[in-house]
Amino acid sequence: MADISTCPPLTRDSVKAAHNRIESYVHRTPVVTCETLNQIACTPQRERKDGQPRGEPSSGSTRLNVKLFFKCENQQRIGAFKARGAFHALRRLIEEEGLENVRRKGVVTHSSGNHAQALALAAKTHGVPAHIVMPTISTPSKIAGTQSWGANVIFSGSTSDEREAVVRDVIEKTGATLVPPYDHPDIILGQGTQALELEEQAEGLISENASLGIPGKKGLDAVIAPIGGGGMLSGICTAMHGTGIKVFGAEPNFEGANDAELGLRQGERITKVKTLTIADGLRTPVGEIPWSIITDKKKLVGVYSVTEEQIKAALRLAMERAKLFIEPSSAVPLAVILYNEEFRRLVEKEAGSEGWNIGVVLSGGNTTVEAIAKLFAAPSKVEERAEAKVGANGERVAENVAG
Amino acid sequence: MADISTCPPLTRDSVKAAHNRIESYVHRTPVVTCETLNQIACTPQRERKDGQPRGEPSSGSTRLNVKLFFKCENQQRIGAFKARGAFHALRRLIEEEGLENVRRKGVVTHSSGNHAQALALAAKTHGVPAHIVMPTISTPSKIAGTQSWGANVIFSGSTSDEREAVVRDVIEKTGATLVPPYDHPDIILGQGTQALELEEQAEGLISENASLGIPGKKGLDAVIAPIGGGGMLSGICTAMHGTGIKVFGAEPNFEGANDAELGLRQGERITKVKTLTIADGLRTPVGEIPWSIITDKKKLVGVYSVTEEQIKAALRLAMERAKLFIEPSSAVPLAVILYNEEFRRLVEKEAGSEGWNIGVVLSGGNTTVEAIAKLFAAPSKVEERAEAKVGANGERVAENVAG
Repeated sequence: MADISTCPPLTRDSVKAAHNRIESYVHRTPVVTCETLNQIACTPQRERKDGQPRGEPSSGSTRLNVKLFFKCENQQRIGAFKARGAFHALRRLIEEEGLENVRRKGVVTHSSGNHAQALALAAKTHGVPAHIVMPTISTPSKIAGTQSWGANVIFSGSTSDEREAVVRDVIEKTGATLVPPYDHPDIILGQGTQALELEEQAEGLISENASLGIPGKKGLDAVIAPIGGGGMLSGICTAMHGTGIKVFGAEPNFEGANDAELGLRQGERITKVKTLTIADGLRTPVGEIPWSIITDKKKLVGVYSVTEEQIKAALRLAMERAKLFIEPSSAVPLAVILYNEEFRRLVEKEAGSEGWNIGVVLSGGNTTVEAIAKLFAAPSKVEERAEAKVGANGERVAENVAG
Repeated sequence: MADISTCPPLTRDSVKAAHNRIESYVHRTPVVTCETLNQIACTPQRERKDGQPRGEPSSGSTRLNVKLFFKCENQQRIGAFKARGAFHALRRLIEEEGLENVRRKGVVTHSSGNHAQALALAAKTHGVPAHIVMPTISTPSKIAGTQSWGANVIFSGSTSDEREAVVRDVIEKTGATLVPPYDHPDIILGQGTQALELEEQAEGLISENASLGIPGKKGLDAVIAPIGGGGMLSGICTAMHGTGIKVFGAEPNFEGANDAELGLRQGERITKVKTLTIADGLRTPVGEIPWSIITDKKKLVGVYSVTEEQIKAALRLAMERAKLFIEPSSAVPLAVILYNEEFRRLVEKEAGSEGWNIGVVLSGGNTTVEAIAKLFAAPSKVEERAEAKVGANGERVAENVAG
């Protein structure tokens, strides 16, 4: 990673410069709209005929006037926005140290997810060796995916101490430069580039077709994006700062996954999170640099969280109605818009009868049909009986029921 | 339906006129590309590392040079191309009889699928009453979907005799005009309009970004689309006739669902089909007028068919790699491109080293996460044992294994 002291300042202009650096390497992903999702979002929860989470009362009464603009980073290279940060970090490193030096030393990271594949792709594109440290227990398809981009996969134990030891070992032996997944300005600036595109694409759609936006409005009023480590959300905050476009974060709240929301409430960053939320891209605590950005009230309005069933309901709607194949983490911002009454009341108040055009970041689409099947499969007769038995013992039974 | 004697001739110019009639009522759906699917399509089956159907040998050796352009009719209004034909049929009827007459009499059809919703939407848009005859056993979500467009749903038994009796009864009582799902020139011309857009959009993408198309080529060489009743495929044949763009049909072959392929081989239309292929939009036999078009060798090169496991494998790739949420019927043309060696050899021969740009019609996306779960759910331990038992009895056991 380029030395932090050499990094551009965290400003909208730096995000624009980042966009210039990477635009020939990443996709300008489409922005799409969906009449049906707009209708559902505008209707008070208790008046909706469908689209509500299973097992939760539809009591919300907030009526909105919003139009949603989905930024399809699920169609980004490697299937997620992470390609932006990885390409930007590598281009910056090459600018600082020269291509030959970077090629000689290589890059290294530890990740079992989208960042691993993103760095492998960026490195391969530039003829740079990439060492990716992955836990031995990673799913074979993710290991194969990373290797298919030509990366050198090195296995480690699954605790962070074990992984970091292997990374140190790689750096000692090869001199490779560490490219962390989110807690670095170059990553943050790279991830923020999607917001510049979203802003411009939404304006384009609205001016081409008046029916797509709130009448009389020419662009976005707000953007909402998921927050895990916070690289993307803080990048979007940076990109939108000074435009008047308000930025919101969206988080799962299962087993304390809403560390950003809770941290903002208590005024202190939460550094450890242990959750098995279905939004598996959002299980990490917020990083230090992202935290310094999202705590600035002029950059981020707030973070709102949703339940597992709300995420599933939003995921279903994105697929069945908008025909967008996304991973559960990507459904979290839509879930906030549809089901979080605190967020909905804020929008009702701020947007008033005039309404809001809201950009919604779909961060990635790296899931499998088996994973979708597991989330939504109807329980077999045998499982139903097993669940009934659990129920009789007084434990929660609704979790695995077809959503 | 407008009287057949008044219908425009089945020509490319008539498809253009149809497009002018309906373009303000339907979406100009996007055309997208996917590097990974291009790579898999170009690789001989036996050299592929993944993407192959379960339980089938990967023996094909044909190497292709193709680029695929997906026409996303899954993002069409009501989630399928059927909106085009329904709007066109209704606009033509209004031109012939006058809006007031059509409003007084109404329209009627029998369908439990996409045509029902398409006609309901077109009718609602024009303030025309729509009577939709649906079998009592239709899934509740489809009944609710049709009713949500304001249609009058009338129930019938599930045999075609029973349904037609109810339709006759509606016509007698109301004077409503029948709008059949595919066997009518106005429907065929309407469905064909997507091909005009696909042709133009692919050219646009290729000229904007040279890497998307075969170098040196400026547009499409071929289009492949699913065939059920044949309204869409014959419409595409009509639209492309005289352009030099070759048209192919794609069909499932489970339990004789490949009636078009078999009919073309024996030189006679097959009028009865009874199949439970997972491509449930393609269970119908080809209609009379579509048949008269697809049997013209100057309009259609041929129809190619695929197995259920090949459809599942293509469906998985469209979702997991291209992030497109589609129904199984929509995956059939991609399955032909990837797995039908007869088709692949023909393309290899015709396209040669120069290669082909192929338009691929994704006809619709009206499925549910539960349906996807059912197709791809891993069998539970209990089911595995049950299957093993069936296997011991000498019956096929592979059908429900995770694909």
